[in-house]
Formats: sequence, C-alpha cells, structure tokens
Amino acid sequence: MTDFSMITGYNSLMNKKAVVLLSGGLDSTTCLAIAKDAGFKVYALTINYGQRHDFELNAANQIIDHYNIKDHSIVDIDLSQFGGSALTDDIEIPKDRNENEMSDIPVTYVPARNTVFLSLGLAWAETLEAYDIFIGVNALDYSGYPDCRPEYISAFEKTANLATRAGVSGNTFRIHTPLINMTKSEIISIGLQLGVDYGLTSTCYDPRHNGDPCGHCDACLLRLKGFEESGNIDPLNYSDQ
Amino acid sequence: MTDFSMITGYNSLMNKKAVVLLSGGLDSTTCLAIAKDAGFKVYALTINYGQRHDFELNAANQIIDHYNIKDHSIVDIDLSQFGGSALTDDIEIPKDRNENEMSDIPVTYVPARNTVFLSLGLAWAETLEAYDIFIGVNALDYSGYPDCRPEYISAFEKTANLATRAGVSGNTFRIHTPLINMTKSEIISIGLQLGVDYGLTSTCYDPRHNGDPCGHCDACLLRLKGFEESGNIDPLNYSDQ
Repeated sequence: MTDFSMITGYNSLMNKKAVVLLSGGLDSTTCLAIAKDAGFKVYALTINYGQRHDFELNAANQIIDHYNIKDHSIVDIDLSQFGGSALTDDIEIPKDRNENEMSDIPVTYVPARNTVFLSLGLAWAETLEAYDIFIGVNALDYSGYPDCRPEYISAFEKTANLATRAGVSGNTFRIHTPLINMTKSEIISIGLQLGVDYGLTSTCYDPRHNGDPCGHCDACLLRLKGFEESGNIDPLNYSDQ
Repeated sequence: MTDFSMITGYNSLMNKKAVVLLSGGLDSTTCLAIAKDAGFKVYALTINYGQRHDFELNAANQIIDHYNIKDHSIVDIDLSQFGGSALTDDIEIPKDRNENEMSDIPVTYVPARNTVFLSLGLAWAETLEAYDIFIGVNALDYSGYPDCRPEYISAFEKTANLATRAGVSGNTFRIHTPLINMTKSEIISIGLQLGVDYGLTSTCYDPRHNGDPCGHCDACLLRLKGFEESGNIDPLNYSDQ
C-alpha cells in the first residue's frame, strides 16, 4: 500500500482526535479515508444545511456505517432561509457546461458555506480538545468557489487560533486539506488505493428521484472526467441519461 | 445630539444595507442603535443556539418591534449538541466573581461562538449584497472571551473577503465593532443618548423564572457596574436578590 504520509505529510497519529467534515461526496469521503489512514480517531461532522441534494446525507450515513465511526454529529442549519444559491433555492442547476464556463463562480455557490462549516467544525473540535480539522476542499478540479483556495484556508486557520480558548492557551488548530492540490483523478486514485467504496458516495447537485446522479451538472461532469482520467469506472449508475 | 460619526467614524449612509448581529443583550442592542443612527438599513440576525437564557430571544424580538425593523432572521443552530459551555450545558454559572476572577476565560465561554455567528452573518450579507456587518463585541469590560479581541475581528474580516464571491469580485466586507474599545459605562451612555430602552434588553446568563436578571453572574455584575459608573439606573428589576 502507498505510504500516504509521503502524500499527506502525516505520521502515524494513533488515537489523536480529528474532526472531519463529511458531506457524503467523493472528496470528503476520500479526505476521511486519508485521516483514518493517518491514524486519527475520526469525529465526523455532517451539516444538513437545506441542500436540495439531500441524498448526500444518506450517503454520509452509509459511509459512517461502512467505516464504523462512533462519533458522527449532524448539525441542522437552514442556510436556505438566506437564499442566493441553486443548491438551496429554486434556481436551476446548470447542465453540460464546459470547463471554461465552470471557471466562473456558478449559481451552485452557497454564500460563505465553508466558513459556516469550518466554524462549526472548530466549535466541536474545541469542545473535544481536537486540534486537527479535515476538509476535502480542492482548488484544481473544482467549481471556482473562492472558499476552496489555499489562501482562504490559511486565513481561516489563523482566525481559528485567535478565536478560541484553545488557540490562546498554546494549542494550535490545523486545518488539513489533503486534497487541495490534487486533480480529481489523483483524488480517486488515492481513494481507491485506500479502499474507498465510491458507490456509497453522492456527488450530483441534482440527483434523480431514486438518488442516481444526473450525469450533466458540474459536479457529475468533474467526477466522471476524474474516473475516466484515472482509468477507473465510476460505480454509480448514470444510465437513462 | 452627539455626532456619532465622531465616535464611530461612520458618515451618513442612508439605506446602505448592514447585517447587525442582535442577541437581545445590552451590547448588541447598542450596536444596532449605532448602525441605525449612522443611516444603515438594518438586517438583524439573531442566532438561537441552544442557550440556556432564551429570554434573550424574547428580548431580541421586542427590540425588533421597538425599532420597527422589517428584516429579522432567526437562525436555529444547536451548539448545545457539542457541549462545552455553561451557557448551553448543565454546567453551573459562576456567581459573584470579582474582576480578577473574570479575567480568566470562564465556563460561560461558548466554543467558537462568534466565528459561527459571524460566518452566518457573512452568509446572509453576501446574499443581500450587504458589505457591512456589525457585532457588539467588547474587549474591555468583557468576560475574557478570545473572540472579542480586535486581532480576532481583523483575522475574520480578512477571511471573509477571501471566502466569498463578493470578496473576490472587488467588494470589501467590513466587520464593524463600534463598542470594541468602550467601557461598559461608555456603551450605556452612548446607548441612552441614542434613545436605547435598556428595559427591553436581556443580559443575564441565568435569569429567574420570570425573566428578571439574577444580579450575580458575570454579565449582570458588569452591566450593573456600567450603569453605576455612567450615573444611570438600570431599568431592569434586580429585587429579591
């Protein structure tokens, strides 16, 4: 098996606690697998934020069962009351866009989402006395979201250490983003080497009624391209497209 | 009337939108009055986070009515599921502490609370295309919370501008903390000059069954000292102490 400490820079950290943000998607599930592989005791945090694609939540629960994770918090927070995103509003999800079009920030952007998610991760981490927080953001094969960039993560990490009792007491929070510089293809390759069952994950912004992916939204297109480039087959069912 | 632009640095900004975090306490209500006085169109945001002193929420609603504010979001988010604070847990609220004791971060500290609150304020602000966010934090007569300090606010502001579509599109979010360097006495004096009815506000961490303040928790003691030093009478009922 690949030595992921070479990739992630993590040494074996058996039973050191980490909060891992888990949406149920491909990236966050790979991120969870990396944290577990590095020896962290995982506290998984899933945010039910009023997203239209709530199959994600079912996926998160299946992944928790699969990894036999004992500590899983699901926080309900209704970001849809603020509006402003196709993921929480009745705005139409864009389909079949090419990569140039994806480089603009799309209507699926949820205002300040990762800041809300990381702040909740920080709140739980501080209570747990965990100083490691994992988030599966990615700045390469992503959808142009500003809160996936390294400079944003770095600014949040600094804020976290100023915000908290833990931070002023000499402990240091680290926001881990093991996927941030990977292509989707690399993420999938590593995940598969770590034994991730991508059949459990849910990526699509606009799934069909049975939960199967649409195959046409930005998230599906990036995922399918990643599987293709990595030479693997996506186990999800894209038929009837 | 005092020219508050001298104090706050704000010019008249009629109908410019601002999100104001409103807990229903003395500080946030004064902060709201300052934002209104500066001419902002106020969008008030109250977070129902599982605090034990939910009389705060009733106070926030009364203040909204009093100021005839049309836009008030109440976001429910259960921080008590993380535990770790006397404000959300069954941990006893400290009473009758002296100021030296208050300089330690107390059990009433809620992990990452202001980061969670500001991130929600940012989410709403971005949706509204409002770039001004007011929070009534105070770094002098406060309870030693790390997320009330200017360096924390500055770090969050930087994060906010990196986190958002608005920030990367050339707009700049500002986190306004007009009270941050004021004593409690100064806050009360300014609030009274702005016509704040402090009888509507709720400060106590551990109110009695009828909502009246206990008069012994850190928050009550700081408030009472502030009224005394400013030469004013707190309109709340502290009898039966």
